[in-house]
Amino acid sequence: MLNLILCSKNRSFAPENKTIQMSLVVVGSMAFDAIETPFGKSDKIIGGAATYIAWCASNFTPVKQISVVGGDFPQSELDALTARGVDLEGVQIKKDEKTFFWSGKYHMDMNTRDTVDTQLNVLENFTPVVPDSYQDCEILMLGNLVPSVQSSVIKQMKNRPKLIVMDTMNLWMDIMLDDLKHTISLVDILSVNDSEARQLTGEYSLVKAAKKILAMGPKYVIIKKGEHGALLFHENEVFFAPALPLEEVFDPTGAGDTFVGGFVAHLAKTKDYSFENMKSAVIVGSALASFCVEKFGTQRLTEISTADIKERIQSFVQLVNFDIELV
Amino acid sequence: MLNLILCSKNRSFAPENKTIQMSLVVVGSMAFDAIETPFGKSDKIIGGAATYIAWCASNFTPVKQISVVGGDFPQSELDALTARGVDLEGVQIKKDEKTFFWSGKYHMDMNTRDTVDTQLNVLENFTPVVPDSYQDCEILMLGNLVPSVQSSVIKQMKNRPKLIVMDTMNLWMDIMLDDLKHTISLVDILSVNDSEARQLTGEYSLVKAAKKILAMGPKYVIIKKGEHGALLFHENEVFFAPALPLEEVFDPTGAGDTFVGGFVAHLAKTKDYSFENMKSAVIVGSALASFCVEKFGTQRLTEISTADIKERIQSFVQLVNFDIELV
Repeated sequence: MLNLILCSKNRSFAPENKTIQMSLVVVGSMAFDAIETPFGKSDKIIGGAATYIAWCASNFTPVKQISVVGGDFPQSELDALTARGVDLEGVQIKKDEKTFFWSGKYHMDMNTRDTVDTQLNVLENFTPVVPDSYQDCEILMLGNLVPSVQSSVIKQMKNRPKLIVMDTMNLWMDIMLDDLKHTISLVDILSVNDSEARQLTGEYSLVKAAKKILAMGPKYVIIKKGEHGALLFHENEVFFAPALPLEEVFDPTGAGDTFVGGFVAHLAKTKDYSFENMKSAVIVGSALASFCVEKFGTQRLTEISTADIKERIQSFVQLVNFDIELV
Repeated sequence: MLNLILCSKNRSFAPENKTIQMSLVVVGSMAFDAIETPFGKSDKIIGGAATYIAWCASNFTPVKQISVVGGDFPQSELDALTARGVDLEGVQIKKDEKTFFWSGKYHMDMNTRDTVDTQLNVLENFTPVVPDSYQDCEILMLGNLVPSVQSSVIKQMKNRPKLIVMDTMNLWMDIMLDDLKHTISLVDILSVNDSEARQLTGEYSLVKAAKKILAMGPKYVIIKKGEHGALLFHENEVFFAPALPLEEVFDPTGAGDTFVGGFVAHLAKTKDYSFENMKSAVIVGSALASFCVEKFGTQRLTEISTADIKERIQSFVQLVNFDIELV
């Protein structure tokens, strides 16, 4: 049933070497999206959580991707990821099936959206298989998927990764809360948006919600607030990063995935999992997300250079940096 | 018709001295409020923009207050302000009339509120008179009032203050937009919330809205976003300060006034009107606002010490401080 297999080639990062610990494994959807915003309407374009994460994270570190696509998914898109150092050995290609499709519409308040259409297609019976070459990863990034599918990947890891980061969505809170809570109990960092944090905990206050999530197992919680930034909680500490104020948020699709992709990529690159370094990782994620929203889909992420990223991070320093004398 | 007059006494700051430049004049309402939030309901308590600003700013600098109250306003409240160094010579007491009254109700989303009742009373025919001893102030803080009443205070100043800061509200955009725009053209800093910035400019993007407001005259614009923090714009620069994440926002009434009160008070105290120092002033304002929301009305502001404020500002440093290596 699983008719994978793409060999990685043209890797722009560390060459294949069985003795090198592979740093970042990403699991999640690769998809087609059709998006409408107040600023325009896209055709069927490339989307999916794992796609955004891979485009973003590959700026910083090699990525080992686990996903599934149909025969309709363009080979050129897969080649483009491979060229950036994204290993696609774990990406199943089901030639006779169709890729997951999502269609959505944003209104003037870009923080909420309506789903117009969802066609699960290949995602319906997705059973991820972790290739041997992905074992011993340091960081496992579980993009939004059915919670039991996420936990099946954790189970396949012979050694527990040093850091397991998990994204999810409200749908699983509605229809499979127990599974979701079980998967949450297995991870180190949960990333959710503000309304999901509230739904998951029944607490309106995000501070209270974060405390309840920390009691579910994770040592860290990220609460994403869209244009209002993101909060990182750990024990009694909290860190906040704003979203960059932009003239136009053209298309917010994938911004949350890009954010968490930048977050894990910075940690994978620096191999420093302290709270202090996670603060920097949140800023890196915010910087990458601020690019993502500038054009439809993954377009902007495919264009940016390391220099662009450095400049954007510098904008964040300017945005929040102050020097106060406590007199 | 104007039957002022309270003499200042028990001033805890610099003693009256005609040769000393007085730093901060505050104009605005002093009021009774009745407030309902998801956490409780207050009796008729002390409120009003100028009251919040005075309680907050008097932590940092002497305040010269211009306002109007009825005979029903408690003398004990006036005495308490006087004891903190708030000069009430410019506060008119209309013994046979009633103090401005506002009643409002907040829902779970504390960023919006419904006005239940508004009784203008003494505010209906308020004609502020600037006492001679208030002339030569460095900073004039125009709390939310009828725009023509705000501009009448500017006209009474023999020398233009070094900095004129103005707060306003959506009501004046609805019913006297021309007057409002005229007053805005006279000031250095406009402080509005996000929905007001959008209404005033017709721009959803706050970055675009800020640019349009800067084109109306002010050199700086502050856009308050409630629990989502505040933005300060100047030319092509922008600074962002978050609101402190709190377990409970008990009552947001007056938080915007307290914020701007802390902002102007820090500038009045430091006499440094650079953009860099305004960033610090935004943080001071945010810190003070974070106290304000912890209890009903002005209650919390009457309790806090300088040590409390220093500790809270330190919390803001922790909240946003990060150290990133651009490698």
